[in-house]
Amino acid sequence: MTYRAPINDILLSLNHGAGLAAAVQAGHYGDFDGDITAAVLEEAGKFASDVLAPLNKVGDEHGIKLDNGKVTTAPGWPDAYQRWAAAGWNAVSGPEAFGGQGLPLAVNAACTEIWSASNVAFGLCPLLTLSAIEALDAHGSEELKTIYLEKMVTGEWTGTMQLTEPNAGSDVGALRTRAERAGDGTYRIKGTKIFITYGEHDMTDNIVHFVLARLPDAPGGTKGISLFLVPKFLVNADGSLGARNDIHASGVEHKLGMHASPTCTMTMGDQGGAIGYLIGEENQGMRCMFTMMNQARLGVGLEGVGIADRAYQQALAYAQERRQGKAIGHKGDGMDPIIVHPDVKRMLMQMRSMTAAARTICYATAVALDVAARAKDAKVRADAAARGALLTPIAKAFSTDVGNEVAYLGVQVHGGMGFIEETGAAQHYRDARITSIYEGTNGIQSIDLVTRKLGANGGASVWALLDELAATIKQVETSNDPAFGTTGAKLRDAHAALERTSKWLLERLASAPNDALAGATPYLRLFAATLGGCMLAGEALAAKANGEAEPQRYVALARFFAENISVQAPSLEKTVTESADAVTGADAVLAG
Amino acid sequence: MTYRAPINDILLSLNHGAGLAAAVQAGHYGDFDGDITAAVLEEAGKFASDVLAPLNKVGDEHGIKLDNGKVTTAPGWPDAYQRWAAAGWNAVSGPEAFGGQGLPLAVNAACTEIWSASNVAFGLCPLLTLSAIEALDAHGSEELKTIYLEKMVTGEWTGTMQLTEPNAGSDVGALRTRAERAGDGTYRIKGTKIFITYGEHDMTDNIVHFVLARLPDAPGGTKGISLFLVPKFLVNADGSLGARNDIHASGVEHKLGMHASPTCTMTMGDQGGAIGYLIGEENQGMRCMFTMMNQARLGVGLEGVGIADRAYQQALAYAQERRQGKAIGHKGDGMDPIIVHPDVKRMLMQMRSMTAAARTICYATAVALDVAARAKDAKVRADAAARGALLTPIAKAFSTDVGNEVAYLGVQVHGGMGFIEETGAAQHYRDARITSIYEGTNGIQSIDLVTRKLGANGGASVWALLDELAATIKQVETSNDPAFGTTGAKLRDAHAALERTSKWLLERLASAPNDALAGATPYLRLFAATLGGCMLAGEALAAKANGEAEPQRYVALARFFAENISVQAPSLEKTVTESADAVTGADAVLAG
Repeated sequence: MTYRAPINDILLSLNHGAGLAAAVQAGHYGDFDGDITAAVLEEAGKFASDVLAPLNKVGDEHGIKLDNGKVTTAPGWPDAYQRWAAAGWNAVSGPEAFGGQGLPLAVNAACTEIWSASNVAFGLCPLLTLSAIEALDAHGSEELKTIYLEKMVTGEWTGTMQLTEPNAGSDVGALRTRAERAGDGTYRIKGTKIFITYGEHDMTDNIVHFVLARLPDAPGGTKGISLFLVPKFLVNADGSLGARNDIHASGVEHKLGMHASPTCTMTMGDQGGAIGYLIGEENQGMRCMFTMMNQARLGVGLEGVGIADRAYQQALAYAQERRQGKAIGHKGDGMDPIIVHPDVKRMLMQMRSMTAAARTICYATAVALDVAARAKDAKVRADAAARGALLTPIAKAFSTDVGNEVAYLGVQVHGGMGFIEETGAAQHYRDARITSIYEGTNGIQSIDLVTRKLGANGGASVWALLDELAATIKQVETSNDPAFGTTGAKLRDAHAALERTSKWLLERLASAPNDALAGATPYLRLFAATLGGCMLAGEALAAKANGEAEPQRYVALARFFAENISVQAPSLEKTVTESADAVTGADAVLAG
Repeated sequence: MTYRAPINDILLSLNHGAGLAAAVQAGHYGDFDGDITAAVLEEAGKFASDVLAPLNKVGDEHGIKLDNGKVTTAPGWPDAYQRWAAAGWNAVSGPEAFGGQGLPLAVNAACTEIWSASNVAFGLCPLLTLSAIEALDAHGSEELKTIYLEKMVTGEWTGTMQLTEPNAGSDVGALRTRAERAGDGTYRIKGTKIFITYGEHDMTDNIVHFVLARLPDAPGGTKGISLFLVPKFLVNADGSLGARNDIHASGVEHKLGMHASPTCTMTMGDQGGAIGYLIGEENQGMRCMFTMMNQARLGVGLEGVGIADRAYQQALAYAQERRQGKAIGHKGDGMDPIIVHPDVKRMLMQMRSMTAAARTICYATAVALDVAARAKDAKVRADAAARGALLTPIAKAFSTDVGNEVAYLGVQVHGGMGFIEETGAAQHYRDARITSIYEGTNGIQSIDLVTRKLGANGGASVWALLDELAATIKQVETSNDPAFGTTGAKLRDAHAALERTSKWLLERLASAPNDALAGATPYLRLFAATLGGCMLAGEALAAKANGEAEPQRYVALARFFAENISVQAPSLEKTVTESADAVTGADAVLAG
């Protein structure tokens, strides 16, 4: 069963749920012509269906091989990558000065969903290149940009991000990889990094590693970390490849999923130290990393959306085809397709509505990041930056939770066949599992939301968003469309719960921070349940207003989400505001 | 990391949460001496830790091999099985007339949890033998019992249950395997069964298959199904093994998890038909299957509990050891174990409290089935049978949902290491996935709960249970123990929501059955959230009253569950009672 990009759903979400059309209309996108979005996405969908989707299972079954420091990817993968890069897909939102197309991040976000849906282990490779490009573009010297940036933008070379070490995972500041000044402006890096995605592969002839390391005289913790560019092959002045650098894949992990993506242990310094070039200033590495963190986290959120949509499409097709039992009232012989059973419908609606909500939250994050970078007005840029910062942890954590939950339901719809690897539903379930862990675990996203995003400015970013959501809710209520069912009431309750809970957390952040941390995860869920519900309702209203074909489909989807997911908001509020003692006082239980 | 059976938790749950002590006290267990329970469980725990737990990963990595119709299990497995059976573990609750120990199902339920926790793919083998024993004991002729029963009770031979065919999964009535009368009282069976657990293996020298098939003149659907005993090797009059029967494993599945358990395609009739012996009467096969369904479903629920506890123990140990970051207020150098972080505490408390609630629901089901079979008084037996029937779908579905959810959190606590297969957390996550599918999907359990259990007697079984739960809630409230936090209020709200929702569903079952079916899954969750919360609160009260060591641990656990899980009941009520239209009207969305 292949994958088809849901172009209509994506366009409605992007333009109306996420607000791209309004931002273009307001002039925040300069001379970007919104009309080309559809054409770009159609082409992306075609490439994904034709080339990437068929390689998804091949990659899962074949995995990768490490032999004598060289990684071989699955059959067909290097060729697919080269075709993908040659078609310009790595450069969609890349800087025009270095060969990029300069399209909005929001358009690239939709593409990222499409790559992830068709083949998430493949899409992961360029995802990290994009982060590396961002870091280099923002903080690299002109000399480094001249040598490396264009080849990374076109995808001729890929990039890696090397943070993690055995004792430094969530706590990046604990890393120990050392960088010594070589005296000629370059550095020699020695150390071991783990969990390095696409740290070594055979899809391009060079790999540009971005490595966090510590200078001998650096202060402890995150304040003493510097960022270095460490190419696999050194690059000669004419751009040709020179000597092999002293950075090697010394191991690959045997993982639950993402089998086609090499997760490498990287060793530097076996031959005296890898040659590295400083990015930004010494000891400012964490600042450089933060630059690219929003986009990388958004990218992982989009993996969640993509996997969810793929799992949904597969489960829907199975439910339409597989016959078991009879619908109530079915007379006579023969069995019905299982999609007639209300419990199966419930699962499919849950899958589709959660995917749609996560999609729009991600796209809205991308639009905010775009406007923060592109708008002419400084206040508009600042507000958009705050919005993007607020939405990023929600986009990452909620969308990847959705990826896992939807893939779970995808297996369930398949019944016993779902547990058989041949069916393919299980691969989505396995692949999704890492997305709620990497690029900052979802617990860390929740803490980021509470402490840095809600807490940053007395909640101002949250109140601004709540005002917008209230306007949508009012529109639902005044639309008097009976097809919305109790959507308006559910969203109003959720909105009020989110507002009260935000205020409670702000107060506790100051007075009892552990109480605030204890509620971080249910708070993020409460936030997403409210936000996602309002966004889907907004899309439904837009679909009706714009004469979309069958707008009632979007009304029904928004209604399901509101009545099944947003409805949980008041319970989540109680969990946040009343169960902190049960969490912080858990020690006696956990000790016994 | 090995597994240790949580004997104290199990005993508190069994005796007080599940009511075994009271039932023994009331004389419903005859001369069973409750004091031996602890000794039995200590021994089971020892065997599980010493022999079974170390084979869990071996089995996962090695899997099984099918070669020329013969299945080879993982190294050490046949020996472990034989030691397990020789120690009497297969016979714990078996009939004494056939070599069993005649202990309560409730005691065996605790053992089943322990086998499942230590090695779920191993424990699955005897689980199916027990179901087969039950069917044979209840419906088999004296002659068949004489030949087969004792060897199945001791575990010398294992049993299989063969229902599923490619076009007959959830809809058993669609099966096509044919049985023809041979004229000598035996039958010749021809057909293909799929997904047959331990359909072939090398752990015993014979396997006794229980096969559903259809006679040539049988009516269609479930009314035309008969049950046959089909031995792998025919048995001579003296009990020795005779000719190989015409039933063979023709394939094994490549699965997401449970790698060590062979899931076979069984072919009968390549040499003229497998010789089968009728169990019960012709066309009464479904009745025979229903006899054993409660216990089999309970067994799968206990797999969920076992996997959850194993995942919890492993995550707890990791969280106590792994150091990342610092607790708020931590001064100076060094990192803290991650268990200090409130978000990690939340995950561990969620894992432990959900596991505890599922455990007690399962054990209470076992006590009800025991009392239904053992009590002297017919009314007591009938009430207990109704209680057991009511609880069975909840025990199966909720506990296996818990197994999956807890294993998910177990991976999450491990961070990136959780995604690496070597760590072992991922195996629990993979193994758990089938439990919410087999022995009737959890959707089917929910529909069973609504249509057959709630609907059976105008809700009488539910009202009787609600009365008991109300008494527990009152005790929590009158205990005035501040450590309960808002437990009393949360449980009272949940209880009221469950009562209202049950009434709504009963009404809809008659007037709009699709609406009732649409709400089945959230209703089961609402039921379990309420029931589990009340049971944990009851255990906490018992721990305080009985002078249990550190009873406040159980109070804290009950509180966490009430404030995090039971608290969802009012939202679930709204989903059931207000979103049926969103489910039944989903066709337009799902078509587009």
